[in-house]
Amino acid sequence: MEVERKFLVPDPPDLDGTEWDEIEQGYLALGADGEVRLRRKADHRLLTAKRGSGLSREEAEVELDGDDFDDLWPLTVARRLRKRRHLIPHGELEIELDVYEGDLEGLVVAETEFASEEEARAFEPPGWIGEEVTGDERYLNETLATRGKPTNR
Amino acid sequence: MEVERKFLVPDPPDLDGTEWDEIEQGYLALGADGEVRLRRKADHRLLTAKRGSGLSREEAEVELDGDDFDDLWPLTVARRLRKRRHLIPHGELEIELDVYEGDLEGLVVAETEFASEEEARAFEPPGWIGEEVTGDERYLNETLATRGKPTNR
Repeated sequence: MEVERKFLVPDPPDLDGTEWDEIEQGYLALGADGEVRLRRKADHRLLTAKRGSGLSREEAEVELDGDDFDDLWPLTVARRLRKRRHLIPHGELEIELDVYEGDLEGLVVAETEFASEEEARAFEPPGWIGEEVTGDERYLNETLATRGKPTNR
Repeated sequence: MEVERKFLVPDPPDLDGTEWDEIEQGYLALGADGEVRLRRKADHRLLTAKRGSGLSREEAEVELDGDDFDDLWPLTVARRLRKRRHLIPHGELEIELDVYEGDLEGLVVAETEFASEEEARAFEPPGWIGEEVTGDERYLNETLATRGKPTNR
């Protein structure tokens, strides 16, 4: 089971020298019970299927060759996003800091994965971490890709 | 643009000697605008994405290797169907006769693709063709895979 917490980052720290990947992703299908995502990350082209929600969420991922990715990618039109993901060490943990680009420019979100709920509750975030948005559907990537940036902030 | 007509076949013809393929398919995701299907047909393992509906329907298909297919297949649970597809020559045309199996046993559907709407209108079906169900959502494969056989017949 994945335990994650997600936060807004209104004022990001200095990111010079951090490790990062450019990520572009788009959704082939978004259903009430299941989604299929294409993602280009560095040299990797991935197709990820997710099913279910909450505790019973299942996921499978396969690597596509470039031609297959290129054949499928056009079907994600208008359901895409781009972001630069920085990996920031924080004690024993690693914070993924997603700096969104394009239509979502200005949005920066930090996410951390924990080994247990206890560890998640004990998390002491760095000072630049802002409001928590764990579980807020407006900040799911599939929502951001289809509806854009939440407007009421 | 695809022009197709679909018919029920209450009393199928003798299928001995016809060419056929065993088809198993399942859906990774079914959305209002987009679906992703896995299909095993003879030695082929295919992933097909469809988007849009009616005239603007787009489709892309890639072949998966066996391991990738096997990784993704479990996520189609409860959204699967099996059928034997017979190919029946009919003049210049070819009729695909799908004999459903498993939970859908007893359902037989014939489908033919035409080069134009004019040709579709001029189609003279063989005597064993029954009621037309072109455009009837209950007989879409995605509906059959999730909701089963229509009950009110």
